[in-house]
Amino acid sequence: MSIPEITQALLAAKKEKGLTFADLEKILGRDEVWIASVFYRQASASEEEAKLLVEALGLDTIYVRELSEYPVKGLGPIVPTDPLIYRFYEIMQVYGMPIKEVIHEKFGDGIMSAIDFTLNIEKEEDSKGDRVKVIMSGKFLPYKKW
Amino acid sequence: MSIPEITQALLAAKKEKGLTFADLEKILGRDEVWIASVFYRQASASEEEAKLLVEALGLDTIYVRELSEYPVKGLGPIVPTDPLIYRFYEIMQVYGMPIKEVIHEKFGDGIMSAIDFTLNIEKEEDSKGDRVKVIMSGKFLPYKKW
Amino acid sequence: MSIPEITQALLAAKKEKGLTFADLEKILGRDEVWIASVFYRQASASEEEAKLLVEALGLDTIYVRELSEYPVKGLGPIVPTDPLIYRFYEIMQVYGMPIKEVIHEKFGDGIMSAIDFTLNIEKEEDSKGDRVKVIMSGKFLPYKKW
Amino acid sequence: MSIPEITQALLAAKKEKGLTFADLEKILGRDEVWIASVFYRQASASEEEAKLLVEALGLDTIYVRELSEYPVKGLGPIVPTDPLIYRFYEIMQVYGMPIKEVIHEKFGDGIMSAIDFTLNIEKEEDSKGDRVKVIMSGKFLPYKKW
Amino acid sequence: MSIPEITQALLAAKKEKGLTFADLEKILGRDEVWIASVFYRQASASEEEAKLLVEALGLDTIYVRELSEYPVKGLGPIVPTDPLIYRFYEIMQVYGMPIKEVIHEKFGDGIMSAIDFTLNIEKEEDSKGDRVKVIMSGKFLPYKKW
Amino acid sequence: MSIPEITQALLAAKKEKGLTFADLEKILGRDEVWIASVFYRQASASEEEAKLLVEALGLDTIYVRELSEYPVKGLGPIVPTDPLIYRFYEIMQVYGMPIKEVIHEKFGDGIMSAIDFTLNIEKEEDSKGDRVKVIMSGKFLPYKKW
Amino acid sequence: MSIPEITQALLAAKKEKGLTFADLEKILGRDEVWIASVFYRQASASEEEAKLLVEALGLDTIYVRELSEYPVKGLGPIVPTDPLIYRFYEIMQVYGMPIKEVIHEKFGDGIMSAIDFTLNIEKEEDSKGDRVKVIMSGKFLPYKKW
Amino acid sequence: MSIPEITQALLAAKKEKGLTFADLEKILGRDEVWIASVFYRQASASEEEAKLLVEALGLDTIYVRELSEYPVKGLGPIVPTDPLIYRFYEIMQVYGMPIKEVIHEKFGDGIMSAIDFTLNIEKEEDSKGDRVKVIMSGKFLPYKKW
Amino acid sequence: MSIPEITQALLAAKKEKGLTFADLEKILGRDEVWIASVFYRQASASEEEAKLLVEALGLDTIYVRELSEYPVKGLGPIVPTDPLIYRFYEIMQVYGMPIKEVIHEKFGDGIMSAIDFTLNIEKEEDSKGDRVKVIMSGKFLPYKKW
Amino acid sequence: MSIPEITQALLAAKKEKGLTFADLEKILGRDEVWIASVFYRQASASEEEAKLLVEALGLDTIYVRELSEYPVKGLGPIVPTDPLIYRFYEIMQVYGMPIKEVIHEKFGDGIMSAIDFTLNIEKEEDSKGDRVKVIMSGKFLPYKKW
Repeated sequence: MSIPEITQALLAAKKEKGLTFADLEKILGRDEVWIASVFYRQASASEEEAKLLVEALGLDTIYVRELSEYPVKGLGPIVPTDPLIYRFYEIMQVYGMPIKEVIHEKFGDGIMSAIDFTLNIEKEEDSKGDRVKVIMSGKFLPYKKW
Repeated sequence: MSIPEITQALLAAKKEKGLTFADLEKILGRDEVWIASVFYRQASASEEEAKLLVEALGLDTIYVRELSEYPVKGLGPIVPTDPLIYRFYEIMQVYGMPIKEVIHEKFGDGIMSAIDFTLNIEKEEDSKGDRVKVIMSGKFLPYKKW
Repeated sequence: MSIPEITQALLAAKKEKGLTFADLEKILGRDEVWIASVFYRQASASEEEAKLLVEALGLDTIYVRELSEYPVKGLGPIVPTDPLIYRFYEIMQVYGMPIKEVIHEKFGDGIMSAIDFTLNIEKEEDSKGDRVKVIMSGKFLPYKKW
Repeated sequence: MSIPEITQALLAAKKEKGLTFADLEKILGRDEVWIASVFYRQASASEEEAKLLVEALGLDTIYVRELSEYPVKGLGPIVPTDPLIYRFYEIMQVYGMPIKEVIHEKFGDGIMSAIDFTLNIEKEEDSKGDRVKVIMSGKFLPYKKW
Repeated sequence: MSIPEITQALLAAKKEKGLTFADLEKILGRDEVWIASVFYRQASASEEEAKLLVEALGLDTIYVRELSEYPVKGLGPIVPTDPLIYRFYEIMQVYGMPIKEVIHEKFGDGIMSAIDFTLNIEKEEDSKGDRVKVIMSGKFLPYKKW
Repeated sequence: MSIPEITQALLAAKKEKGLTFADLEKILGRDEVWIASVFYRQASASEEEAKLLVEALGLDTIYVRELSEYPVKGLGPIVPTDPLIYRFYEIMQVYGMPIKEVIHEKFGDGIMSAIDFTLNIEKEEDSKGDRVKVIMSGKFLPYKKW
Repeated sequence: MSIPEITQALLAAKKEKGLTFADLEKILGRDEVWIASVFYRQASASEEEAKLLVEALGLDTIYVRELSEYPVKGLGPIVPTDPLIYRFYEIMQVYGMPIKEVIHEKFGDGIMSAIDFTLNIEKEEDSKGDRVKVIMSGKFLPYKKW
Repeated sequence: MSIPEITQALLAAKKEKGLTFADLEKILGRDEVWIASVFYRQASASEEEAKLLVEALGLDTIYVRELSEYPVKGLGPIVPTDPLIYRFYEIMQVYGMPIKEVIHEKFGDGIMSAIDFTLNIEKEEDSKGDRVKVIMSGKFLPYKKW
Repeated sequence: MSIPEITQALLAAKKEKGLTFADLEKILGRDEVWIASVFYRQASASEEEAKLLVEALGLDTIYVRELSEYPVKGLGPIVPTDPLIYRFYEIMQVYGMPIKEVIHEKFGDGIMSAIDFTLNIEKEEDSKGDRVKVIMSGKFLPYKKW
Repeated sequence: MSIPEITQALLAAKKEKGLTFADLEKILGRDEVWIASVFYRQASASEEEAKLLVEALGLDTIYVRELSEYPVKGLGPIVPTDPLIYRFYEIMQVYGMPIKEVIHEKFGDGIMSAIDFTLNIEKEEDSKGDRVKVIMSGKFLPYKKW
């Protein structure tokens, strides 16, 4: 997977400035995961957000326009090969149908929205080894009949 | 995707008995998602857990052995076509790399385990439409150097 | 592509009774396309709807339960080979990105829901050859920021 | 998916000029979706249309020739990863066979043309959330026997 | 590739009766290739044609209904492995773009219909080895602008 | 699908000179489809043919060598996305097995050669819409036993 | 890969009779590899050859008809997983283009026929380990120009 | 398939010098097919062999190092589209299992090595058309038990 | 992945008898992994070994013949979905090229045989969590030049 | 597979200096396979390790930063074509399920970690031909229940 040039530029500037995504979260008033999605052109910032970001990173304002355009989303590949990302794919291979059963039981026939959706990552300290906590929250969308 | 016969038998018995996965959670002392995974032969129960489950569902004890065997996991297909499951695949297509960036920043080079791992589903009531909350927690595993 | 047994049974009964989907539309008070989706187990009927349908088709009531369960959706294959269905795939190959541009221009960054969604088919009589009119209507879902 | 250079140039010029596809619809006397298809080199303009378009966008006339050539069509990938475009793919996965049944019932054995074909997008205002309306109209082509 | 049961029954009956497709051509008043397509459920016969065929083959009339239904078409696989069929795939790999150029030059932007379409096979006797002649004729469909 | 540079150069020169493939047919004494195949480097010209072609197009003689080399053939992709080329793929999906039956009946076990092979395209004028006629002729090659 | 029933029956009978393919070579007057191809329904025997084979194996004469029909060829899968067969696939991955160069140099633009083709297998005794010798011989087919 | 730059350089130099692979065979004392494999970086030459080759082709000695490095092998694609190379793929599709049967019968459970392996190409003159003879010889490797 | 019937029968008998693969190792004098490979029909036993195994498991002697036949090997799928097996696939995705570098440095141009090959699994007790040790040993096969 | 530029630079410098991975093992105090993984950007070095490596290779210190960043891992392709790497893929195709059985028997339901993992390569001298020994050691991770 080749990383887009704009993403490389943003990541390099962030490193140069010694900023973390958590720092940017405070500056923009947006979650760190969402900001990382803007870095990868998977989410579009408002012009104001784009300006704040570009300024914080000390980059040229020419990036503002691109960051506020609506991107073609989806980073591929079909089956991810990076072990960190693959684990999420595996989770769906193993727990996908069980999740479907439980959601249907709790909500009826429909889906969890991936658009009206938020995702947070937290660090759970644990003496047996810290844990990654991923919290997804998506609006339930019932199938419309017509 | 064809659903395995044992899964069909368990689901039919559960319906017959009017039980929810939440009811089974109380009986087995295990989370409802994990129990649904046992239904789909993606997790193996202990003999005791299998007995409790088979009893609760009013099924023949011949199922006990099979439910406690270690299954071949993974339900396919490569790209899921069911809309509910696809949304999780889409989340990884769109937010996979941003998640990777944030986890690396918080934890260093490594992954979230999908084995030392739990997954819970909650219903968030919301006046603008209820929300599905999915909480994943996996041990962080740093890459070993040698 | 093999057609599920329940679908075959419903289609055979419909033929036997000399009913069209338009006739069933009047009986159920639901659109003919949605009813055809119930035939293919891509939509779940309420118990009442399932009863009405089974009765109209003169079938055994044992079908009622299955028709009201929440199905695993998606009929495959990845690239359709049936010429009628392929044309819709081709439309997306050719006009997908242009549609994306126009929707973004009219609505902003987001998608057309395929869940809060209806689809109608009409016959447009035309002296140069009748035309198939397909009308899709899906709720616009803007990307949530967080 | 990499966007062709000519498309990028046209989109940039359109943004620069502050034009919408709806504005171009008035200038060219062609539908906005069709014009967006010309941008993506999925439809070929007549020389006159190409001139009007290039002029409106304030671009060099060297683009006129390319825009009137007959393009190799189809933008890929096999399964779209962009969520907006994927939803149309999902619609065919879920409703493809039901649509086939209803078209056959209304028209007989044949297909909806994707060549003698038009596609319009409208915004339906709705207090519960605006809706995207997509209207396709294709000539019915009955299978020829010989 | 597994051959459908109805096809096997028709082919066996044809062999039993000692009939060729050319013989059936005379009986039905339809081309032999089209009749072979009916055998493989890739074309639907009228009830009258189905009756003639079933009678000629000495089969039960229960086949009449199935042969006049509108089939799901396309026999797969994606890349054919049978050498005879693969050669046609190879012809498109090698000569596809050249054919596109020549058709565009003769007709403009559009396609050859595969629906309003006929295909004949003739044997050309030749002292250096007989030749297979395949003649396709499809209506030219110009791309509609809108 | 990206078009090779040499093909682009040849097509541009042909347009510049206002030549059709039919014109080139007269100059080279070879069929227009075959010449288009040379343009796409799917057929190799003799040095003499290459010279005639390069001259007719007013191009530099450096192209002569490349046009007479034996090319790596096959233009991909696996399933064509261009609608004109896809129709030929669809024809094989739908009529492939019927064609196989008829060829076997007329010739025995073997194939139609795609090497000792010619392909012509004609325009059939027709008041209900002109038709594209494609005539393929390949030597029948019987399977050798040994 | 599932082995066809007829193949299993033939192999079982051959084992029962204690016959080798080399023995059958003497009985039929055909090469052992070709006979093995008949076993797998990749080659069609004449009625006489089929009778000889069925007799030698002590099988019912009902097999004679099937063995003399023209089969659908190609055993899949796309990339073979059996190590013995994979090695031949690897040979083409590694030496395919070099072979192409040498054949073109010796013969010009064309191919080695896989139809007018024979294949023999010999055992070369060698003190450092016996060797498998595979000899293929196919008619060279030059590309026809037209 | 794009041909590596070094391969292009070697082929161009060979053409310039008017050398055949057979000529190089005499100079290097290696088989022409093996030498063609060195051209395509599918085999590694010793430094001495590389020097002889580079000298014979009149190329700069900077190529010597690269030609003697151990290459990443395999030229793809998964299913070859070039007709000459495809025929070898087809041979394995059609005759793969029969070959496996015969090798097992002659040698037991094991494979033909593709590493301790040679491949020669000869021209068999034949009045009915010259034939391409391909002779492969690979050490038989029996499966080790442990 | 469906497990072959014979494998299921062997595993069930082994469970019934309360035997481990380590027990069978003592009975057959073969490694436990190799014996497990015989269970899955990926390795062929000698008749004597097959008899010992069938006897130890208390099964009918009809299994002896099948277990000593040379199997079609390779269990698929292309990308394994079972997490335990996938990890080995991931190891090759991540460490494949580094392994290649180190083997080439130590041995020259060639491969590790997967035929003249053994594989052992050991349990390493470790206070921080036991470890799985996998030891592979394959003969180095240098590429033959010819 | 194209090798990343940084990898090429490191390999070239290593060759220039006449260093082996075993030499680098002594300098860095890390295993040679792990160091080769750093070369291919499949493992991240600490800043100190990166400095030692860059110094040993006589390269510019600008490489230090990149070598200590956390890489996107996985080198593809899905099915490897290089024979050395393919053998490991084949080992998993053939012995994957047997390995799973033996690990489950020794450890219970869980996996061998590919993260808390080491891999060593040794040369076993053997008069019948040297052997490649690959030793993997991964922590056993039992499936967590919740």
